[in-house]
This record gives sequence, structure tokens and C-alpha cells, in this order.
Amino acid sequence: MSDLSAAHGETLDRAVQAIGARDYWSAYPEHPKAYGEEAPADGEAAFQELLGQPFDTGQDHDGCTVVEESSPYGIALGITYPSTTVDAVIADAASAMASWRHSAPRDRALVSLEIIERLSSISFEMAHAVMHSTGQSFLMAFQAGSPHALDRAVEAVAYAYTEQQRLPGPLRWEKPQGSRDPIVIDKEWIISPRGVAVTIGVSTFPTWNGYPGIFASLTTGNPVIVKPHQATVLPFAIMVRAAREVLSDQGLDPNLVQMIVDAPGALVAKDLVMRPEVGIVDYTGGSSFGDWLEANVPHAEVYTEKAGVNSVIMDSVVDLKGAFRNLSVSMTMYSGQMCTTPQNLFVPADGIPTADGMASYEDVVGGFVGAIDGLLGDDARASAILGAVKGQDALDRVEAAQSSGTVLSASRSIVNPEFADATVRTPAIVEVDATDKDVYMREMFGPVIYVVKTESREQSIELAREAALKSGAITWLAYATDESAIDSIVDAAVDGGVSVAFNLTGGMFVNQSSAFSDFHVTGANAAGNSSLTDPAFVARRFRVIGVRSEPAA
Amino acid sequence: MSDLSAAHGETLDRAVQAIGARDYWSAYPEHPKAYGEEAPADGEAAFQELLGQPFDTGQDHDGCTVVEESSPYGIALGITYPSTTVDAVIADAASAMASWRHSAPRDRALVSLEIIERLSSISFEMAHAVMHSTGQSFLMAFQAGSPHALDRAVEAVAYAYTEQQRLPGPLRWEKPQGSRDPIVIDKEWIISPRGVAVTIGVSTFPTWNGYPGIFASLTTGNPVIVKPHQATVLPFAIMVRAAREVLSDQGLDPNLVQMIVDAPGALVAKDLVMRPEVGIVDYTGGSSFGDWLEANVPHAEVYTEKAGVNSVIMDSVVDLKGAFRNLSVSMTMYSGQMCTTPQNLFVPADGIPTADGMASYEDVVGGFVGAIDGLLGDDARASAILGAVKGQDALDRVEAAQSSGTVLSASRSIVNPEFADATVRTPAIVEVDATDKDVYMREMFGPVIYVVKTESREQSIELAREAALKSGAITWLAYATDESAIDSIVDAAVDGGVSVAFNLTGGMFVNQSSAFSDFHVTGANAAGNSSLTDPAFVARRFRVIGVRSEPAA
Repeated sequence: MSDLSAAHGETLDRAVQAIGARDYWSAYPEHPKAYGEEAPADGEAAFQELLGQPFDTGQDHDGCTVVEESSPYGIALGITYPSTTVDAVIADAASAMASWRHSAPRDRALVSLEIIERLSSISFEMAHAVMHSTGQSFLMAFQAGSPHALDRAVEAVAYAYTEQQRLPGPLRWEKPQGSRDPIVIDKEWIISPRGVAVTIGVSTFPTWNGYPGIFASLTTGNPVIVKPHQATVLPFAIMVRAAREVLSDQGLDPNLVQMIVDAPGALVAKDLVMRPEVGIVDYTGGSSFGDWLEANVPHAEVYTEKAGVNSVIMDSVVDLKGAFRNLSVSMTMYSGQMCTTPQNLFVPADGIPTADGMASYEDVVGGFVGAIDGLLGDDARASAILGAVKGQDALDRVEAAQSSGTVLSASRSIVNPEFADATVRTPAIVEVDATDKDVYMREMFGPVIYVVKTESREQSIELAREAALKSGAITWLAYATDESAIDSIVDAAVDGGVSVAFNLTGGMFVNQSSAFSDFHVTGANAAGNSSLTDPAFVARRFRVIGVRSEPAA
Repeated sequence: MSDLSAAHGETLDRAVQAIGARDYWSAYPEHPKAYGEEAPADGEAAFQELLGQPFDTGQDHDGCTVVEESSPYGIALGITYPSTTVDAVIADAASAMASWRHSAPRDRALVSLEIIERLSSISFEMAHAVMHSTGQSFLMAFQAGSPHALDRAVEAVAYAYTEQQRLPGPLRWEKPQGSRDPIVIDKEWIISPRGVAVTIGVSTFPTWNGYPGIFASLTTGNPVIVKPHQATVLPFAIMVRAAREVLSDQGLDPNLVQMIVDAPGALVAKDLVMRPEVGIVDYTGGSSFGDWLEANVPHAEVYTEKAGVNSVIMDSVVDLKGAFRNLSVSMTMYSGQMCTTPQNLFVPADGIPTADGMASYEDVVGGFVGAIDGLLGDDARASAILGAVKGQDALDRVEAAQSSGTVLSASRSIVNPEFADATVRTPAIVEVDATDKDVYMREMFGPVIYVVKTESREQSIELAREAALKSGAITWLAYATDESAIDSIVDAAVDGGVSVAFNLTGGMFVNQSSAFSDFHVTGANAAGNSSLTDPAFVARRFRVIGVRSEPAA
């Protein structure tokens, strides 16, 4: 492993420092240009070669499985994946763990970092895979699919490594016995992995949400089985292929990382997680299956990131135009298909104070709708921001939303200049009354925005809090200048278990969370039971076995 | 809190250092003499004054509840406890949390340490309470009930404090944007307690097993409701009274620590833990209710310490007499009513090598039985070692064990010289065949020892491993001198998720685990899902809420 230490030892140590300091740091550049002139064309070519072919992850398989994968950009993917069974992947994972658990935590961290480095080298191939399976724009697919996801992966490796380093090495323990000889015992502690780890992928940000659990498990000695979302398989297939290549190159068992896919009509996740060998489940996706996992898999540690209803509280603003500019991006990027996208905008009926005097309710709502309409007025620019819509359910929700209140801006179809069959919709902006809780206090994933007219600051805060407590929430964004308003909002955010951002007008959007600094999801409300990444996310992925020995006389 | 910092700041810092170094340290002396000349008489008098009276914890109550508490020493306790309701304790706990969560982690740690110090000052009163409710001998009740339990409490405070200290204070985050201005965001993180914490006590070591969860929860900002075992109430009542006194003295809400007891025929634990306000459950006790908690309370973090089948592997011994001396104590102290007591002694039919040549199977078994019979030959000494048996179930198990194999030493009644009505039994030592798995691979809590005749070293190890995997295990003790035997046993222990001790012949017994050094229970098998105390035991007792703000222009 000495070559790996030379290659990644500094990164590991720097990452460990970063998770403590939490100031800005990144392991992988987010600018495509940093990857060299040939990388874009090479990556696209590699992606094109995958289309219409059986994908070889390097696993043993008994044929190819046709899956329900589809591209929101309307291109035919036509990729089939290795066919295997729950029995086979569980057996191969358990077998791989037997030797992996004996390796040193630092070596496991370095192997993880080598896989991450390999993944970085194929960032453009991954970008096309993420774009065409999730519907993200190319730039988002590049950034969120590789460098930002890989930063999250490095972060998880740093936490996993740090937690394992908290034990001392072998030592001699001496307990004084007054005038008699002390009791002397030699002690050491052995780290034991928790068991086979299963990652159940999400359809929208498979790598960004999936890597932390995968690399935390791997670094703590557990083998990983990835079960991608049935409609978004390719990014994980590429990840699994790369991981297995690195493991083989290092002389390790490639079955430490495996994939199993759903065949149409034959979902495997439940069978997989109910196997007693499974010790860890990482899940990102809808609340229904996440709730089921939390309640029905007591033999494993279950980490969930589910859905929530995110709120914007308009209370008082210095720069109203800046606020609209920021909101128009955060509420439309990737068509609201981020679990961090704000859904509800709470605006008091009496309007809000600004640096230029009071803005009436109508001013605020009009300005907000105008900013979004303006941003999306040009089809090419709109396409770059909106990406494409993944799945019929999101389109159905747009229709449902438009019949549930006053439509301030109707959703319309846009033609993507490059992909004529892409499914692109502007968001429906719908005004509802504060009392319409059944409408806006549930998640409407996709291009749906509710403007909620409230009686007061206090009601805005209380409704946001109620939505977080009832349906979960991952982000709040508040515009507030008054100290007592800020204090009230922070108190309500803590109550609701939701992180909050204030007064964003510039280049930071509330949807974004930065590895090594921001925690993604708090684990404190129904939006998920865990956080990317904190010590709690890794501390139970291994256990400690104590060995005590009385020294020979 | 400045007075508390002066009083306990050094202890806190020393404890934080101790949990990292894991060499010998203790916060409270285990020798009764260290507590002053008057402490023994004062403590006994305080205990005597409690008998036959309503116990006042200081809580609001609506009368007194008669409980099923009983003394294995046969004295009449006759104590009644404050009567309250689940609704009342939940409401008062939630109300107490509202301000407690705003206090600083270090202040919460110092308040916890002040409660612990108060508990130390009543160590003798507690010793009598523990002795007469659990059946422990006086010395064990003193040591395990107070100083060792308080060391475990200090350890939990140190972990809880350490975990909360891992976040930086408020900081300014700056992300470079090439030639443009950086993105600048002010960030801070707020610790939010998980929710109302419930501790469900055990009948045998209520304080030792209960304090870690109680003080970890309190230090991380959660209010605690203690639900003692219906048959062992008094130790927790004393603890709750002391905690509430300290909280009131500090101007804090005493309802941060409350107690609710079971009335006969009306157990409250299920109603209590199913309340949505409950965020944490700590449980020590039988596997049946522990398994239920793990499977049915998904809204809370559930920490369990349950039952297991502990093994002794006789493989090769230098000092066979020393081994017998050590085993005779560890397998009889407190009549096998420690969750760490070895139950099964695996001895190969071909005998084992010793420094004095081969010892035959008959030599080993005969020497072992003789050592126990000798140790317990004198009634007064036997009483001091055995304590008294808690509950009819344990006596029933003795009868069942004696009809399940060859009785090598029959259990007999002993008259305690001080308490004529005490229930004292020597252990039944029963020889069974390796194939009698139904008999010895389940926990027989109480004075029951099985000697299992095996075909070989390999079979001994495999059977111990199988028992750990099937029924859980907390301790293994092995006598082995051969390196390959030691390696095989360690491998099997890691497989079985059980800590192992080798070659104990002196003053350390396998039943004992020392705070700040040994982890109690691994969390890696069916004997429990958590460990006293590791970072995983505290990391999920709080969550972190991020607050981001764009600085004013």
C-alpha cells in the first residue's frame, strides 16, 4: 500500500483536518476545464460506446438484465446489466469481507481514495451518464455527479478513518492495589465491520447521495452491494466497474463492491436488506420506502435521506431584487428535483420592509414571479437551468398543483435545442392560502412552487415549522434583517430540525451544501434519520472487540 | 456555572483524556474506607429511614404507588413511590428540555458531574439500597452500585462532551471564484437534543447499567425519564432524588430527571416509549423486551444491553490451579446473575496440556468442581460471594438445569448468617454433551454452570462461536498458551462479536469491565446493540442544525 500512501496520504490527512475546521476546502475541481483538453471528448466517446450494449461491471453473472432505465432527454439508452441473484451477491460479499476486515483502517481509507481518484479520472463519462439518466443539465451532472460527489466521498472516508483512529494501540493496563502488586492486564482492541452494506440508490443524484455511505462502509471494513434505482442504473454501474478495477489492481477481492439491479416487475431491495448478513443499509429516495426500511430492518443500521417540504420565509429584505435573483435560480434549477429545493414561499399579506421602504404583498409576489418568468424566458437558457423532468409522476404533480390554487405562472413545455425529445417544463407557480395545509404541507417533488399568503411573520414561521415537523424539511431560506425575527426563525428551525440559510442574494444557493463544511440533512425530522456526513453516520458501521490477556508470569 | 467549573472542570478534562488513552484511571475510590469513618453508619441509617415509607423524589405526584419491589435478603422494604402518569412526565420533560437545550455542552457536562458527585456522597445509602433490592453482597453493591457505576457515568459524560466539542465555533467560509470575488458565508452550528430520553432499568445492576445512558442523554441536552425495573426501584429513586436536588440547587428545572414506576399489573414501559416525544430509549434487561424495543420503536434511538451465553474455552494452561481459583470466583460471584458471568465451560475429552504435563478431562472437570465446592464450603464465605438470588425464575432454572444433564455438583441452600430469610443457592454444575445444544446454547441466568465435553480444540471454539452468534455473548474467557490457538480464538471472537480475555489467574475476573478502558458489550451480536461507552453510544443523542448567513453588504 506504500504507493497508495504516497498518492493519497496527504489528501487523507488534509481531509481529516477539513472536517474538523469546516472552512472551505475541496479535493476535486468543479470546473470542467481543470480536467484537460481531451477529457470532454474522451468522456463523451466513452459514454456513447456504452449505449445499446451489455454493461460489464466485471462481476460474475448469468446473462444480462433489461432494466427500466430511461433518459429524460429522450435518447435511447438500451443498456443491459449483469444478471445475478441476492444469494450470489450476499455470498460473494461475505467472502470478500473475511480478508478485508483484517486490513488496517488507514489502508482501507487509501484504497477508497484510490477508487475515488479513478472515478475522478472518468468525470466526463460519468457526467453524460448522470445527465442522461437523471435529467440534470450537463454542468450540474458534471459537478454534482463527480467532483462534488467525490468531495462527499472523501469526506466520508475522512470520518470513517477518524472514528477508527480513536482507539489506542495495544497497551498494558495497571490497576494499583494499595500495598499489594497491581493488577496488570495487556489490552488491545480489534475493529470489526458491521456486516454486508447495501446502498439503495436514488434516481436523481445517485452518486452524490450514494457515495458517502458506500465509502464510509468500505473504509470501516464492510463489503458493499449497490442496488441502483430501477430508472437510474448507469452511474452506479460505472462506479462499480471502476471500484472493482481498482480493487483487482490492488490485489484485493473485487467483490467488495458489487451491483444488483431490479428486473422490470421484480424489485430486489426488500429481499436484499432482509438477509441476516446485511448489517448496514443506506437509502436515498422517497419517504414511503425509507419509512419502511426504518421500521422493518432491525437487524441492520439503516441510514435514510428521504423527502421534505422546504420553505422560504420572506420577512424583511435589504436587497429585494437580489433576493429574487437568488430565489429564481434556487427554485428552478433542475426543475425542483433536488431534495433541497424550496417549495413554499411564505409572504405576509401586509408586505415586508425593504431598504427602499415597504414592499406590498403584490410587489413581492409579482417581483418573484417576474424574476422566474424572466430567467426562463429564453428556451436555451431555460433548458440549461431546468434540465429535464425525470418520470411521469412529476408531470402529474404539476397538473395536480395547477388545480389546487390560483395559478400565478402556468407550467409550459420547452424545446431543448439539443435534445428534441427531452421532457422540459417550467415550474407551475401556484398561490394558496395559509389554511390550505393539505395542499402545500406535502412534498410536490418537481417543478411546483407554492406562494403562501400569511397573516404575519409569526404565522409564516409557525407554518414553516409545522411543515417541517409534519413532513420533514431539509432546507429553510429566510430573508430577515430584524434580530428578533432571526432569533425566532433559528429557534423554529431547531424545533423543526431543519438547517436554515439567511439573506442569500449572491452566488450561493440554498440547495447547495458543501462537503467538509455543510451537513446535508440533519437527521432530526422526517426528511431522514442521518446526516451527510457526521460522526454518527460512520460510528456504528463498525464495532470494537476487546482482547485482554494476563501477562505470562 | 463558574463554581461547577472549579469543582469539576479538572475531572472532566481528565476523563476526556482517559477515554482516549484507555489506561487505568478512576474518578471514585472503590474502597469503602476512603469515604470517611462516619459514612458507613450514616448511609445505613439513611437507608433504614426509607423503609416502610413513601419515597419523595421531589416530583409532582398524585399519591403513592405500591410496587412489586422485593429484597432477595428477605427483609421487608415496604416503600411506596410517587404516582404519576405518562402524560405528566412526558409533558414535564418536554418543558424542561426547552431551556436545557440552550445551555452550553460544557455547562451540561459540569451539571452532570455535580449530580455524580452528589451520588458519590451517598454511596453507602445507595449500597444498602442496591444490596437489598438486587441481592448483591454488600461489597459488590457498594462498588458496582456507586464508585464503578459513577466511573461509568463520568465516562459517558466525557464521551457526550467530546462529541459535542467536535464542531467548530462560528466561522466565515470563503469559496474562491477564480478572478471574481469569493462567495462568503457566515456559518454556525447549533446542537439540538434528540428528544425525551427514557431509561428502562434492570433488576440486577440498575445504576451501573443505567447511569451511562442517563448521563449521556442529559449532557447532550435531553431530559431523562427513568422507568425502574418493577422489582428493583429504590436505587433509581435515590438517584432521581439526588439529581433533582442538584438541578434545583443550580436553578435548573428538576424535571430534567424524573421517575415513573410500574404499578402491579400495569407496566408503563410500552406506553412510555411509544410517545412521539421520546427520542432515546436505553434498555438493560432480558432479550425478549429488548428485541421488541429494537423492532418496534423506529421513532427513537434504541440502545440495548440484553442477555447472552458466555463461554470459557479450556485449551492449554500454564497454571491450572490459578485458572480454577479465578474461575471459581468469576462463575459464582453474585450467583451468576451478572450478564458477564461465564455459563459454559468447554473442555476437550482428550484433556489439555499444562505446565505439569497433560491434564485429563476428568482432572480438569474434577479440579474445577472441587475449586468451586471448596470456595463455597463455608456458609459465611459462600454468602459473601453468592449474595442472594433475585426472583423465582432463577430458582426454576436451577431445577431445570439439574434435570438436563449429569449433575457434577448439586445446588444447595445456604443460610446467610445475617439475613435468615435470604435466598442463597450454590450453583448447579451440570455436565452436558457437545450435542446438547438446546440445553446449553441458551442463557440460564442465575446459579447454573454447564461443563461441555468436546471432541477437540476446534470444536470448543466452534461451539462457543455458534452460541455467540445464536444467542449473543458478552464475555469469553480462554485458557490458551499456543499462538495458533490464541489466533483461532480471537478470530472466532471477532466473528461472534464478543470480547475475549485470556489466561486470567489473578485478581482480574472476566465479569469485570473497567470504565475508561474496557467496553462493556460490543453491540456486534444479539447480546445488545450498543456498547458502554463508545462514541456510537452518544453520537446520535443530539443532532446538528446548520445556520448559514450571507454577510450584509
